[in-house]
Amino acid sequence: MKQINEQKQLVGEAAAAYIEDGMMVGLGTGSTVYYTILKLAQRIKAEGLNIQTVSTSKRTTELAKSNGITVLDLNKVEHVDLTIDGCDEFDPLLRGIKGGGGALLFEKIVAAASERNIWVADSSKAVKQLGKFPLPVEVLPFGHTHVLRTFKNEGMEAAIRQAPDGTTYYTDSGNIIIDLYLQEINDPTALSLWLNSIPGVIENGLFINIADKVIFIKDNAVQEMQR
Amino acid sequence: MKQINEQKQLVGEAAAAYIEDGMMVGLGTGSTVYYTILKLAQRIKAEGLNIQTVSTSKRTTELAKSNGITVLDLNKVEHVDLTIDGCDEFDPLLRGIKGGGGALLFEKIVAAASERNIWVADSSKAVKQLGKFPLPVEVLPFGHTHVLRTFKNEGMEAAIRQAPDGTTYYTDSGNIIIDLYLQEINDPTALSLWLNSIPGVIENGLFINIADKVIFIKDNAVQEMQR
Repeated sequence: MKQINEQKQLVGEAAAAYIEDGMMVGLGTGSTVYYTILKLAQRIKAEGLNIQTVSTSKRTTELAKSNGITVLDLNKVEHVDLTIDGCDEFDPLLRGIKGGGGALLFEKIVAAASERNIWVADSSKAVKQLGKFPLPVEVLPFGHTHVLRTFKNEGMEAAIRQAPDGTTYYTDSGNIIIDLYLQEINDPTALSLWLNSIPGVIENGLFINIADKVIFIKDNAVQEMQR
Repeated sequence: MKQINEQKQLVGEAAAAYIEDGMMVGLGTGSTVYYTILKLAQRIKAEGLNIQTVSTSKRTTELAKSNGITVLDLNKVEHVDLTIDGCDEFDPLLRGIKGGGGALLFEKIVAAASERNIWVADSSKAVKQLGKFPLPVEVLPFGHTHVLRTFKNEGMEAAIRQAPDGTTYYTDSGNIIIDLYLQEINDPTALSLWLNSIPGVIENGLFINIADKVIFIKDNAVQEMQR
């Protein structure tokens, strides 16, 4: 079986082939889209493509700019043609969990503004049912202990995400992430609506009706599923 | 008919009577709760009450502290007994619109953390159906033009709130407010869920299943409704 990093490179680069001259492209965040961005930079130079992009995180903006890719302010853009992003889990209906890297809020906003969305995924991301991957919930710092209590009162295992140095992790918007360890999510749509209705919850990592296509690895080969 | 300011003072002060010694009190924001806060400060001094509070805005924190009221960090508080707040509209089911003053996000978080909620309202606030008052929606600046487009695509009249000096208004959390001019809201619960499901929407001004009691003016007298 191919190494995970080799898989990420394969699907990340495969997705870059869907980018066409003149497109406004949404750039996701993470270790797989990393390869999409490098490949896109290569194509822009080699093929002289006219591509503009919007970004889903500070990290991605830096990576793209340092590779010569134009990054615009989403508010200045009328239309996004195609967004390519990673995911942490996806199910057979192309519903997914995102936010392991902490960029779920901007990722969801760019995805919602985008006409088409392609996800790239190594072989570890395909699941029959969502939920093994902890579900990230972005929460305002103000009053977050009460949101945490709401989750615990519902019997959910919940933890405030920490940075590698053990301090509280903060998103690009200055919010915290509460990870929910649910194991099995039976009704992602209902869960997403409930989470977003809790005062103090900014966004959650369930992405439903967003991905049009997933490019992934199965049986050591690049495969595609679409909706 | 009593002047509006006199009405605000009457209901604001009437609500302060529900505060009991030893309570943890949530303090709302606005021109009516202003009188509750002044009255509470008076009662603390006159009756030697032991009251602690949490606040819903910078303005309220300053007002309370400058009147000698203890204000704590909501995250350091296990339990809020009673929150007193204003509203911009309330209907016969005690559903309301809040956020005319821009503090809806913190107000909703404190309300959700509070065991009981009392609203105070002058005679202009009671309505049969919600919606004449523009519905405030707090939106992340990142990508907000796409949220605005979503509203307009739904046929909603929507405008970004401005500060009195004509610049964009920013909330205590650094977000913008988009006011929706709906005139009639037929299903507040469905609308609230839909709004909160839009990526980039942080919170909306529909407060449903929150107020336990409204103290208001009718026929020139202080009256109460409860749920």
